[in-house]
Amino acid sequence: MEATDGATARISIALLHYPVYDKNNQLVTTAVTNLDIHDIARAARTFGAHRYYVVTPVAEQQGLVTRILRHWQDGWGATYNPKRKEALDLVRVAATLGEALSDLDQAYGLPVRVVVTGANGRGTMTTCSELAPIVRKGEAHYLLVFGTGWGLADEIFDRADLVLEPIRGCGSYNHLSVRSAVAIILDRLVGERCQ
Amino acid sequence: MEATDGATARISIALLHYPVYDKNNQLVTTAVTNLDIHDIARAARTFGAHRYYVVTPVAEQQGLVTRILRHWQDGWGATYNPKRKEALDLVRVAATLGEALSDLDQAYGLPVRVVVTGANGRGTMTTCSELAPIVRKGEAHYLLVFGTGWGLADEIFDRADLVLEPIRGCGSYNHLSVRSAVAIILDRLVGERCQ
Repeated sequence: MEATDGATARISIALLHYPVYDKNNQLVTTAVTNLDIHDIARAARTFGAHRYYVVTPVAEQQGLVTRILRHWQDGWGATYNPKRKEALDLVRVAATLGEALSDLDQAYGLPVRVVVTGANGRGTMTTCSELAPIVRKGEAHYLLVFGTGWGLADEIFDRADLVLEPIRGCGSYNHLSVRSAVAIILDRLVGERCQ
Repeated sequence: MEATDGATARISIALLHYPVYDKNNQLVTTAVTNLDIHDIARAARTFGAHRYYVVTPVAEQQGLVTRILRHWQDGWGATYNPKRKEALDLVRVAATLGEALSDLDQAYGLPVRVVVTGANGRGTMTTCSELAPIVRKGEAHYLLVFGTGWGLADEIFDRADLVLEPIRGCGSYNHLSVRSAVAIILDRLVGERCQ
């Protein structure tokens, strides 16, 4: 993923299934869904992200993700659709955000900046246009953190180095799926410069 | 969806389940998936699209879409998540692209331009940056046509008024899900001006 100026944009993605809110503002653990794995892995590969962490503390759910990955990486799926394998090769399972951060740190030896996203935003926020040139410099690795359910818990926002401005469309409706939000944010951050 | 200049961007979406290719380049009818309905409806609502046509010639599949819509519009889902209802209110079922075009024509009385999308492109293509200001003028209604399976049949490209340039990321991998592609294209066409 070499940028035209020779620098390297280092972006990874984390999708958190805990701690997130449900519609009644209670902290819950959501279930992993198959399409979150596939869609986000495909977008990650398309836009040159390095890793995509599916984060869940539930052992059975971690096992489910591993089983899905294996199907497409080594099983029947690898022959049926090698392009899917290429995308899913980016996926890692992590129990917590901290575990994902340690893995990134070990893998790339660069400082990791936590970029938190959400439909509501919080505090001082950064726009994609502001973040894009910073990411392009390649001085740090940026982990874009997305929530499931009704959004990331406050404690995740507390750990953010940057909070990304919510995606706004035309009007007040801002209920994109997390899959759509990931695609749009990757396109805004690294899409333009590749074209 | 009034633009700042007083013009109105009229965009709708059609997701075709026929005629599309399978991985062996054979014409097939794909199955409707629940998440295609939800994700694309949510993106459509966010970016102010007018209608979202789920196009399938199969009566049982049309019935399935209607049943899903009813659940969220009138059933238990309407109370559980009214925001979902708001998105799904844009959805219409059509047997063919022609049927969707007639419906748009009757509803808005504007000329309808067919904008075909795909991962491979074909012939003379238009970029989103070129199309965005044209759409903004509001002189026609633009129906963005997306394919399922391995992409839209040639006969659909033959009916296109415009072919949109494929979304390219970093490198040669261009296997986004149709859900991600819709989100990115809507953001590129009408997202910027709303922010």
